[in-house]
Amino acid sequence: MRYKDRKLHEEKVFKDPVHSYVHVRDQVIWDLISTREFQRLRRIRQLGTTFLVFHGAEHTRFNHSLGVYELMRRLVDDHFKGRAEWDDSERLVVLCAALLHDLGHGPFSHAFENVFQLDHEFYTREILLGDTEVNAVLRKVSDDFPLKVSQVIEKTYENKLVVSLISSQMDVDRMDYLQRDAFYTGVTYGHFDLERILRVIRPAKEQAVMKYSGMHAVEDYIMSRYQMYLQVYFHPVSRSAEAILNHILQRAKHLYMTDYAFDIEPRPFVPFFKNDITLQDYVALDESILLTYFQLWMNEKDDVLRDLCTRFVNRRLFKYSNLNSDEDMERYVKLQILFAKAGIDPLYYLVSDTTSDDFYKASAQNPIMMLMPDGSLQELSTVSPIVEAVIGKLKPDRKIYYPLDVVEAIEDDALRNEILTLLRRK
Amino acid sequence: MRYKDRKLHEEKVFKDPVHSYVHVRDQVIWDLISTREFQRLRRIRQLGTTFLVFHGAEHTRFNHSLGVYELMRRLVDDHFKGRAEWDDSERLVVLCAALLHDLGHGPFSHAFENVFQLDHEFYTREILLGDTEVNAVLRKVSDDFPLKVSQVIEKTYENKLVVSLISSQMDVDRMDYLQRDAFYTGVTYGHFDLERILRVIRPAKEQAVMKYSGMHAVEDYIMSRYQMYLQVYFHPVSRSAEAILNHILQRAKHLYMTDYAFDIEPRPFVPFFKNDITLQDYVALDESILLTYFQLWMNEKDDVLRDLCTRFVNRRLFKYSNLNSDEDMERYVKLQILFAKAGIDPLYYLVSDTTSDDFYKASAQNPIMMLMPDGSLQELSTVSPIVEAVIGKLKPDRKIYYPLDVVEAIEDDALRNEILTLLRRK
Amino acid sequence: MRYKDRKLHEEKVFKDPVHSYVHVRDQVIWDLISTREFQRLRRIRQLGTTFLVFHGAEHTRFNHSLGVYELMRRLVDDHFKGRAEWDDSERLVVLCAALLHDLGHGPFSHAFENVFQLDHEFYTREILLGDTEVNAVLRKVSDDFPLKVSQVIEKTYENKLVVSLISSQMDVDRMDYLQRDAFYTGVTYGHFDLERILRVIRPAKEQAVMKYSGMHAVEDYIMSRYQMYLQVYFHPVSRSAEAILNHILQRAKHLYMTDYAFDIEPRPFVPFFKNDITLQDYVALDESILLTYFQLWMNEKDDVLRDLCTRFVNRRLFKYSNLNSDEDMERYVKLQILFAKAGIDPLYYLVSDTTSDDFYKASAQNPIMMLMPDGSLQELSTVSPIVEAVIGKLKPDRKIYYPLDVVEAIEDDALRNEILTLLRRK
Amino acid sequence: MRYKDRKLHEEKVFKDPVHSYVHVRDQVIWDLISTREFQRLRRIRQLGTTFLVFHGAEHTRFNHSLGVYELMRRLVDDHFKGRAEWDDSERLVVLCAALLHDLGHGPFSHAFENVFQLDHEFYTREILLGDTEVNAVLRKVSDDFPLKVSQVIEKTYENKLVVSLISSQMDVDRMDYLQRDAFYTGVTYGHFDLERILRVIRPAKEQAVMKYSGMHAVEDYIMSRYQMYLQVYFHPVSRSAEAILNHILQRAKHLYMTDYAFDIEPRPFVPFFKNDITLQDYVALDESILLTYFQLWMNEKDDVLRDLCTRFVNRRLFKYSNLNSDEDMERYVKLQILFAKAGIDPLYYLVSDTTSDDFYKASAQNPIMMLMPDGSLQELSTVSPIVEAVIGKLKPDRKIYYPLDVVEAIEDDALRNEILTLLRRK
Repeated sequence: MRYKDRKLHEEKVFKDPVHSYVHVRDQVIWDLISTREFQRLRRIRQLGTTFLVFHGAEHTRFNHSLGVYELMRRLVDDHFKGRAEWDDSERLVVLCAALLHDLGHGPFSHAFENVFQLDHEFYTREILLGDTEVNAVLRKVSDDFPLKVSQVIEKTYENKLVVSLISSQMDVDRMDYLQRDAFYTGVTYGHFDLERILRVIRPAKEQAVMKYSGMHAVEDYIMSRYQMYLQVYFHPVSRSAEAILNHILQRAKHLYMTDYAFDIEPRPFVPFFKNDITLQDYVALDESILLTYFQLWMNEKDDVLRDLCTRFVNRRLFKYSNLNSDEDMERYVKLQILFAKAGIDPLYYLVSDTTSDDFYKASAQNPIMMLMPDGSLQELSTVSPIVEAVIGKLKPDRKIYYPLDVVEAIEDDALRNEILTLLRRK
Repeated sequence: MRYKDRKLHEEKVFKDPVHSYVHVRDQVIWDLISTREFQRLRRIRQLGTTFLVFHGAEHTRFNHSLGVYELMRRLVDDHFKGRAEWDDSERLVVLCAALLHDLGHGPFSHAFENVFQLDHEFYTREILLGDTEVNAVLRKVSDDFPLKVSQVIEKTYENKLVVSLISSQMDVDRMDYLQRDAFYTGVTYGHFDLERILRVIRPAKEQAVMKYSGMHAVEDYIMSRYQMYLQVYFHPVSRSAEAILNHILQRAKHLYMTDYAFDIEPRPFVPFFKNDITLQDYVALDESILLTYFQLWMNEKDDVLRDLCTRFVNRRLFKYSNLNSDEDMERYVKLQILFAKAGIDPLYYLVSDTTSDDFYKASAQNPIMMLMPDGSLQELSTVSPIVEAVIGKLKPDRKIYYPLDVVEAIEDDALRNEILTLLRRK
Repeated sequence: MRYKDRKLHEEKVFKDPVHSYVHVRDQVIWDLISTREFQRLRRIRQLGTTFLVFHGAEHTRFNHSLGVYELMRRLVDDHFKGRAEWDDSERLVVLCAALLHDLGHGPFSHAFENVFQLDHEFYTREILLGDTEVNAVLRKVSDDFPLKVSQVIEKTYENKLVVSLISSQMDVDRMDYLQRDAFYTGVTYGHFDLERILRVIRPAKEQAVMKYSGMHAVEDYIMSRYQMYLQVYFHPVSRSAEAILNHILQRAKHLYMTDYAFDIEPRPFVPFFKNDITLQDYVALDESILLTYFQLWMNEKDDVLRDLCTRFVNRRLFKYSNLNSDEDMERYVKLQILFAKAGIDPLYYLVSDTTSDDFYKASAQNPIMMLMPDGSLQELSTVSPIVEAVIGKLKPDRKIYYPLDVVEAIEDDALRNEILTLLRRK
Repeated sequence: MRYKDRKLHEEKVFKDPVHSYVHVRDQVIWDLISTREFQRLRRIRQLGTTFLVFHGAEHTRFNHSLGVYELMRRLVDDHFKGRAEWDDSERLVVLCAALLHDLGHGPFSHAFENVFQLDHEFYTREILLGDTEVNAVLRKVSDDFPLKVSQVIEKTYENKLVVSLISSQMDVDRMDYLQRDAFYTGVTYGHFDLERILRVIRPAKEQAVMKYSGMHAVEDYIMSRYQMYLQVYFHPVSRSAEAILNHILQRAKHLYMTDYAFDIEPRPFVPFFKNDITLQDYVALDESILLTYFQLWMNEKDDVLRDLCTRFVNRRLFKYSNLNSDEDMERYVKLQILFAKAGIDPLYYLVSDTTSDDFYKASAQNPIMMLMPDGSLQELSTVSPIVEAVIGKLKPDRKIYYPLDVVEAIEDDALRNEILTLLRRK
């Protein structure tokens, strides 16, 4: 039997707290799970710094990736199989893409990518196509199979229906992470009727569409996303932690580039500092290594690095204020000047961020299409007043973060008060 | 207001997926949570190597410790307060003991303690009484408060009722971990009616007792424990991972003691290798550091260290066979000889373990006492046929672990077959 | 001890699938539950005809009333007690009002009230103040206590805060029924974070208000309501069953008034037909009696009564079409003429209904007020873009119902086709 | 297409709170659900008088029957289909048997059957084979199909595997009712891992067997059953209500047989009193009719009938005492004499019952067989120490029931005290 058709002698089952069980029958899937690149995802948290706010959210991308695979398996095996619009020869590529779609994520993905200007999608591709255990497994299917999997993940695959299953407003990736993140954080608002949604998804020419009879489940899913963004993904305390993390890495890089003498050479980081990164270097990094170095750096002589690491490791985070109006921007500039005057480096101690507008956009290239009773397709927000109503309600939110304890310790009363007033702390 | 009575301006709430919310009003509790020693528990998993079997079980001792605190808070504030047998001046010491009872756990506790012959209870005491942030907070309550907390945890505290709340067959520690581990593993059998149990616990002279009307809930709790032990805590694959971990540490120590030249000096481990450990050394270790070194050691020249680390990090675990009869022990001895003959060091590659008999024992010093309708106390198993029936059903289980892949690669057919037959693999 | 302060020797506990347990300590509450008028609620379903669509929804008003009481008890005992704005001498009146607020509901409330032009609120008052077991218990508290309880339920009670707890946009009545109806129907969308909401409700001068920090929970509650209305309360099949029920009662009344000779005298209905109803008559009716008579009437000689009863009992419901535009109204008139022409009495076989606009209205007299961080009060929709967005999205919906089987059996092809076309069935 | 193979144009879905959804594709199943005999099950509670103890348990046999059907559908379509040991031509008969197995249940089954010496299994057969709508649907499949369905339910069907799916220690009937009754009562102990169990059931020659790997799930199921029996099915208060119900029917029969003049003729009961029952009579009865007559009888002149009906309707139940030893039986006889002496008819006011020993018996004809890794079959209790331990722990329990209020009102102090002492109430 060809490798791609080989089944395990006996089905393997992973107990999963979100989907009850993850089922594996295909030898290919089993072998992929056993690769070192996939096992590495056990050391990368799904929600980055969120565990510092929601202590339950300690789950990893390994956990999530199995979930995405399982949802895809249920979708294609239990619901699509046998339908005219579904080509079952795409089954394996789409299962592999589901399992491996997060392979290129680095430790604390966003901060890390930001500082070193990396792109996890690039590295996912590298791992799929490069000299890796994952690639070796995929090549056993066929020579062009690694490329196909990578194209599905990169959305360049020819069969757009297949792409839409993993990259659209209602793909299995989002479905898994919304439920999973809700489960682990304990936030009740992230639940929606997954079983119903899987039942009303229909394969169509260019993308999967939703049967109109599942409208309420779809609306509820959209509302769940809205709530999860507001309450979990954009939580300001988690963003504060991420801001610190970001500036730890920036500081370390800056020190390295300016020939600072580290007590312990930051070996795994050097390629990143020098922007001369091999696939090997990239895959070697994970969150345990970052946390180890952050702890070592808590003893470095550099005040900024030492302080920021201590803050991150022992969770002494920055406080935050809003910065949403034009008038606020003026405040920000003034604050930078005053911070500098007080001897607090604004580059590291008065930082800002803005939430991305990653929420549902009807205008986006992958809108949710409803399959109406008369067979026509309608974009979701045109048939759902409730979705129409919430679109665009998630405005980008800008905040500044700063160490309130340090500000409050400024000795000069006038200066301290001026700063506190501008921070809206008085 | 005295520090011990100080309340937060506004109650702090942690979202918890198991108990919905963890509520903090006391300044002392809030300050303890913010200490570096308590934050360190974020980097120590609750279930050690279990996440390699149940991928959902990535939760930490931080997560669990908050839960134990919350259960204790509900018990004393919602159920004990106002009862004649309860002295509410014990409230703070018992809340602190609940929160801090796991403070001394090291990374992958059992394996680590085993190899270096450490005792987490000793280190909990050290952290409570030594020069730590936790001690500084506790001393603000009163000079003897750290000692009191430590006595509660060590079961030497004068008020035995207080001790029993945290160390008995039905203490809040067990109640939290059974529910929490069931939640995170996804195992359905670990649930019991916690709310009911909290309602039927009554303070009594020497210990907490259970009202007879809660009998069914107590039986169900015992059955849950039984199932969790069988299915999760004693899972052979998790024990296989622990066996490897154990032997990594043994090998590293052996190499260090025999002056092996490590590529990178294993700095954080040196005090442990030399058995000259300061509190500082102890607290500095966590699982991120172990995982970091294990990855570094995947490149060491020593074959055994390199191989074992690779197995642990990439999850290529040992297989197992039972070893429960006398005849089995003979097999074990023969296998050791044959392994050596095949050039596979039995010291590292043919290892065994036995499950402890940690399950409910009626004869134990802290039996569960039922408060009967007539006011008398009866030991649980004497009034519950079902509990009486399961006592002693969990026999110690002995297994051997070995790298089946290596055995199968032995070239000498006769030797290989002899080994496989003895391993019951043929 | 005065009756109103008397506590049960031991707390009574009802196992409740929605709130885990319902706790009763007060003798008054216990005695009220034991009255025949309260026990009668066991024979009146909470959701009328909805069980014919959602088979799980067989729960009764008894079930719900205990739940409302329990939520109120938690609110005042666990959250309000001790707050300056809360007068704990109102505790008992508000618990009784919560328990008894649905006492006057008749069988299949809406249809029944409609046909006989009754008002359950009037009968609740009658039962509280008349010669009933409930009144006897309440009078033991004090002579004016029955009136007080009735005033709270009728919203005329002096203390407006007390009234708001049971009659407002976020009262405990709604909180219980949303969760309970979601639980029993199995609809996943009806869940919201009840525990959180109970924690952020604050007593204020004229009404209960919600702390701003609970905004997300409140938004989620509003969305749950929206979904429950759309999917459960306004479900067209349940409305079809209600339309039939309505017309059974109308037909029976018509027959009685026109001296039709019933095979079995409809004794319990006679006072209602004659509109000469004593409290005794009212309380004597319940859904078991209606279902019994409907079954007896399945053997009556009157074709319409017999047919409608058979349809209701054996669930052979009318089909439905929309009737929302002006043009639709014209269709309706035409259809009535054609039905008559085909010998199908449109009075009973072509009926319409419109959903009430019972959803959240910011303009209503009891808007949800948010307690902002600065201490000011803001109406919910002015601070929540999502609530602002959904207000007014639930438009009244008009439908017509008819026996499609009968229409399809019309022999005259032209007439049948004309009707089917107008019904949008062709 | 033959009727038996006909599929609905579009799958019908029932929302079910226990199994999420019940799916119907087969025209036969849809038509059966629409029959009046199946719809009648909406008016018969699943747990008889249990709703008087667990107010949540108001669900009906209609609710349960859909659940049994759904579990059977999942078992044969998702798990058995394609296995060599499974003959898929048995699919329809087993689905119908699952759906219809409770068809013959009368109102408050046990009490009713008891008094009139009826057997619901006999009536299930009558409904399947007699002149009913159900029979008409089944005959459309084939002439012998009604008989086949009836044989499966009666366990006389040739294919014993098919029989075992619906009548064995682990059949889908039990699986549904344990979960469903736990859900509706709110009792937490009734849950087990249904999904896992469905996955490890294997068709075998004479019966379904359980894969050894599902042992823990099976153990947990057995423990759930044990707990449900103890806590729900054998609850003494529910048995007290059933005792009253039983004696209402006995009294009414006695009155009828002794020519008592009822105010309203008990028409639907007459055939039962006279033991001359047509299928028509049987099917015409349901719980709404019983409850209606009980309410009418609350106004009868006969003291006993009036009192017992009032007790049942308004839930003024008998109290209970244990009666398990020989010495107890002596007490019982003495009490009967004393009751008579006090003018309280012991026939109706001092009644006893014994719980049946319906729990798991290894010796039963349908033991649970485990499919061991070596392919052999082992009876469950021989391989599970925990099951072995609980077998036989549920001993028959005998109780007496009596109106404590009436006893306490006996004027003769000595007599009253003697009775109370014997009732262990003093």
